[in-house]
Amino acid sequence: MGVIDERISGLEELAQQLRVDAVRVSAQAGSGHPTSSMSAADLMAGLLEGHLHYDFAHPHRAGNDRLVFSKGHASPLLYAMLRAVGAIDEEHLMTYRRLGSDLEGHPTPRLPWVDVATGSLGQGLPIGVGMALGARLGGSPARVWVLCGDGELAEGSMWEAFAAAADLGLGNLCAIVDVNRLGQRGPTRYEWDTTAYATRIGCFGWHTVEIDGHDPAAIDQALAAAEEEHSRPTAIIARTRKGKGVAAAEDKEGLHGKPLQESEKAVVELGGVRSAHVEVSPPRSTEPRQRGERSQLHLPSYPVGTMAATRDGFGEALMAVGEADPDVVVVDGEVADSTRTAAFAEAFPNRFVECYIAEQQMIGTAVGLRTQGWVPYAATFAAFLTRAHDFLRMAAISGTDLRIVGSHAGVSIGRDGPSQMGLEDLAMMRALWRSVVLYPCDANQAAHLTATMADVPGISYLRTTRGETPVIYRSDETFPVGGSKTLLSSPHDRLAIVAAGVTVPEALSAAERLLKDGVPVRVIDAYSVKPLDAAAVRQAAADTGRILTVEDHRPVGGLGDAVLDAVAGRIPDVRFKKLAVHGMPGSAGPAEQLAAAGIDAAAIAHAAQRLLA
Amino acid sequence: MGVIDERISGLEELAQQLRVDAVRVSAQAGSGHPTSSMSAADLMAGLLEGHLHYDFAHPHRAGNDRLVFSKGHASPLLYAMLRAVGAIDEEHLMTYRRLGSDLEGHPTPRLPWVDVATGSLGQGLPIGVGMALGARLGGSPARVWVLCGDGELAEGSMWEAFAAAADLGLGNLCAIVDVNRLGQRGPTRYEWDTTAYATRIGCFGWHTVEIDGHDPAAIDQALAAAEEEHSRPTAIIARTRKGKGVAAAEDKEGLHGKPLQESEKAVVELGGVRSAHVEVSPPRSTEPRQRGERSQLHLPSYPVGTMAATRDGFGEALMAVGEADPDVVVVDGEVADSTRTAAFAEAFPNRFVECYIAEQQMIGTAVGLRTQGWVPYAATFAAFLTRAHDFLRMAAISGTDLRIVGSHAGVSIGRDGPSQMGLEDLAMMRALWRSVVLYPCDANQAAHLTATMADVPGISYLRTTRGETPVIYRSDETFPVGGSKTLLSSPHDRLAIVAAGVTVPEALSAAERLLKDGVPVRVIDAYSVKPLDAAAVRQAAADTGRILTVEDHRPVGGLGDAVLDAVAGRIPDVRFKKLAVHGMPGSAGPAEQLAAAGIDAAAIAHAAQRLLA
Repeated sequence: MGVIDERISGLEELAQQLRVDAVRVSAQAGSGHPTSSMSAADLMAGLLEGHLHYDFAHPHRAGNDRLVFSKGHASPLLYAMLRAVGAIDEEHLMTYRRLGSDLEGHPTPRLPWVDVATGSLGQGLPIGVGMALGARLGGSPARVWVLCGDGELAEGSMWEAFAAAADLGLGNLCAIVDVNRLGQRGPTRYEWDTTAYATRIGCFGWHTVEIDGHDPAAIDQALAAAEEEHSRPTAIIARTRKGKGVAAAEDKEGLHGKPLQESEKAVVELGGVRSAHVEVSPPRSTEPRQRGERSQLHLPSYPVGTMAATRDGFGEALMAVGEADPDVVVVDGEVADSTRTAAFAEAFPNRFVECYIAEQQMIGTAVGLRTQGWVPYAATFAAFLTRAHDFLRMAAISGTDLRIVGSHAGVSIGRDGPSQMGLEDLAMMRALWRSVVLYPCDANQAAHLTATMADVPGISYLRTTRGETPVIYRSDETFPVGGSKTLLSSPHDRLAIVAAGVTVPEALSAAERLLKDGVPVRVIDAYSVKPLDAAAVRQAAADTGRILTVEDHRPVGGLGDAVLDAVAGRIPDVRFKKLAVHGMPGSAGPAEQLAAAGIDAAAIAHAAQRLLA
Repeated sequence: MGVIDERISGLEELAQQLRVDAVRVSAQAGSGHPTSSMSAADLMAGLLEGHLHYDFAHPHRAGNDRLVFSKGHASPLLYAMLRAVGAIDEEHLMTYRRLGSDLEGHPTPRLPWVDVATGSLGQGLPIGVGMALGARLGGSPARVWVLCGDGELAEGSMWEAFAAAADLGLGNLCAIVDVNRLGQRGPTRYEWDTTAYATRIGCFGWHTVEIDGHDPAAIDQALAAAEEEHSRPTAIIARTRKGKGVAAAEDKEGLHGKPLQESEKAVVELGGVRSAHVEVSPPRSTEPRQRGERSQLHLPSYPVGTMAATRDGFGEALMAVGEADPDVVVVDGEVADSTRTAAFAEAFPNRFVECYIAEQQMIGTAVGLRTQGWVPYAATFAAFLTRAHDFLRMAAISGTDLRIVGSHAGVSIGRDGPSQMGLEDLAMMRALWRSVVLYPCDANQAAHLTATMADVPGISYLRTTRGETPVIYRSDETFPVGGSKTLLSSPHDRLAIVAAGVTVPEALSAAERLLKDGVPVRVIDAYSVKPLDAAAVRQAAADTGRILTVEDHRPVGGLGDAVLDAVAGRIPDVRFKKLAVHGMPGSAGPAEQLAAAGIDAAAIAHAAQRLLA
């Protein structure tokens, strides 16, 4: 037996071990996806043995290659790999899917070798694009390997990723597509037509290789070909058989996401339990990327009494943050002139990624960049962030630190009409796990919050306004997360108005009118919508007994609901009224829109009077 | 001058008229997208004159072709076309973007010639796929024309549409891509490389034609070629110049979404105001599709006291609804075995559309089918509906009647982990304009609500549960939208528990324990989460003074917030507590998950005791 034959035989053995372990863990858990793991076992054995460069003892080492299971349901295969490399032991492996175990049904970063949660299909490759870009930006020779399913290639987000990766020339990215023909419900659209995939992906500018995904030599060659490619990303389109290796399961419909029926027999058929150990190649570089040194931050300032848009406050502050912190990167969905990331893009072209009109890829890029140590800000219209809702949901599961900025919030944008208005964004962002939601009313506040976000863990969201608003804060004020500003207050306040963003000046104007009518009211700027300054709101409720909230957002899930949640059950006998956008706006000027929606100064004053009556 | 020359000259004149009107309306409005309209004027002139078959006097005629402006910002061009065909007059045209006008910044179905709202890019073509499919299903010879921008081809949803249309063999669909090279911020990824688009779209299985988009003869030929194609969709990739016809604007950056600076001069340069009238060809068929006749509905029934999953109640009811109503169609995102639409798919294969794992296209298909008179139900995992959030948001703006079903809601799915759990879906669906949100707790209720949805206008959402729950309702009970069921009630109730779906049996079990401890409590099944039965909740608050809500959802935007909103400010001195999923679940069994999240019977009983303390 020659060296090559021996190597091939070793690969086959390793693949069988991975299959056996996938079968075993799913059997003990009573659930899981063994068949989806078995199809890709040869591919992953080939990757582990000779192509992946990774220090499993130090998973967060910057020089490590990255491996993403875009087909996250093949988690049994991933965990079997971790056992094969000695990262976890048999006992740990067998906790799969049990309460408290970090070996979850779909991989999450609770495991140190997993950078991002997967399981919602079509997200691993877009994130891989960000990882590969982040590695290149940091001068790392690491490569990014993404195991994809064939079924998930139906997701448009995958094609956003194919387009972006080719455009960016990510020679350090390799997608390994496990074409096992069968989706959850039945055959995929193209079944085993690997050429259908190769042609399409090739058209998108990738280097493609079609192989038999159960041929160790072909796999080895394809992975080597990917490593030799430096200017284009590589896609290995591998024809495989779902459930490979067990006759009762191989290429059979109706077995997706189910343990094998006779798992012990299957293990015997696969040659029994093995405990081979794989020595994985060390990282291609031992030099970790240094975090850039931060210098002093010089935020822009706007004179009180002038007019400025919060999106401008954000944009100029972003420039300053980028100047002070060389690790800050910005992604935008082809609207940098509107979101105001354009100045950053011009000043720091190497740290700006134009994602074009592909919001899913935009968030995927940001998530991937973050895993490489960068500090990403992602900006588009608030309305179009809904396009990336699932990516944000998964990023929350990953616990990724992301700074999201949504411009053109609310009806106040004016004549462009409802398609461009972010009216559900607060609901979406507040519902995300551990999110922080900030909504500045003036440019100085926007600038400060932009800087603050850099150090907020998890997902933070800044909501900006298209039009100019009066500058009411001095530039040396501070705006901590979870705080609020009480703008008007007297011992005789009969009601408290809680506003944020564009409704703050309206609330102040309403308060002026009410005071003229002899009605003193408190005005609270709840710029931190989540976490809300519950103490201030409760105090106001206790002091005045009447709370009026006003927001440029749908009545569900926004500021009003946040305030209600803060006072509910804690303050006896509070009268409460929520002003929000109930109807469907059309086109009109900003002031007309606020009036039509019933959230301008006149509407606020009127509602206050009614609440007092 | 020959007949052809005369025709060409007429087309050129018409195109100039469309440009002039686009310039004029944007100028008077002080905003809008004239340059994006001018690039496509020749294309639309060619379509109007000889290829579009449409009765503008009867826009809802089934035999009409359909025209969708996927690049909705080119609305000035659309409105100019409407003037040219005599659908609107000069005075109407000049109301563009004014308060109250139906000529909004981006087209909406407030105009009878517009089927769906556009303006969020990348949605018109996916919806066009549904329209073309709907036309074919109804035996209509109508064709669907979609004007696309080049920038929006970066959206993955467009590639979902390209893949689906080719797969479905939609020979009646034509995408006209206006490759004007410039996006909002600057050059698009492929600029004028029309071959880059043609190659990619061709690889996806479309008939493609590359033309000079300002050459009337080439346009005419390309449109004719599309009409001659019957087995494949056609994409006309037209190289154009943004701002075409006005030297100061033509192919210039920085002019996106802005009126021309010297609009009067521009009108002169374009040859002045014209008022030519175009006679559009009549519909290809004058036979409207007949709405199918409904027969009697025979819903499934489940014996009280047995166990059954609400997803099964939905699936079996869907079969019955499909049997009784031949206009019901179903789309699913390749999880029909899980959502339980599989039985419908098997029984009515012609009325089932497999959308594969492409949730945006799934909703686009449903919206398009609806415009052709069908009654669509769309189903996938609740978690993955977030993928289509923007499509749902736009469908709400369109006022489309859609029935959405999200399965695998909440932590109760068990071991698959958080990526598969719908935990933000209630927040998302409740925030949509005029949405209805239903969440059944047993299979009979699920079956009834499934049938009820067929007649609910706008977007209605049914949330189903993976596991079995006890059947508590008789099959002859009724469950009106906006209603609730008080399951336990006595004159001495000290507290009311409001639950829905999987938490209803938990609440009943908790109530039993509390009663044993001498604490009678009320239990309300709020199956209609939106609109909520506010009267019942307020009555309970008034009667007991204590409300405890419990839901398998994040604490933001769900049942608890809906209840809070109903009682807020109306009932003095209510003590309130919301139980919901605060942490990040891992993998575990369903009962373990409910316990870990603090929403099972024990947690409810405990919270009730604390609220009473």
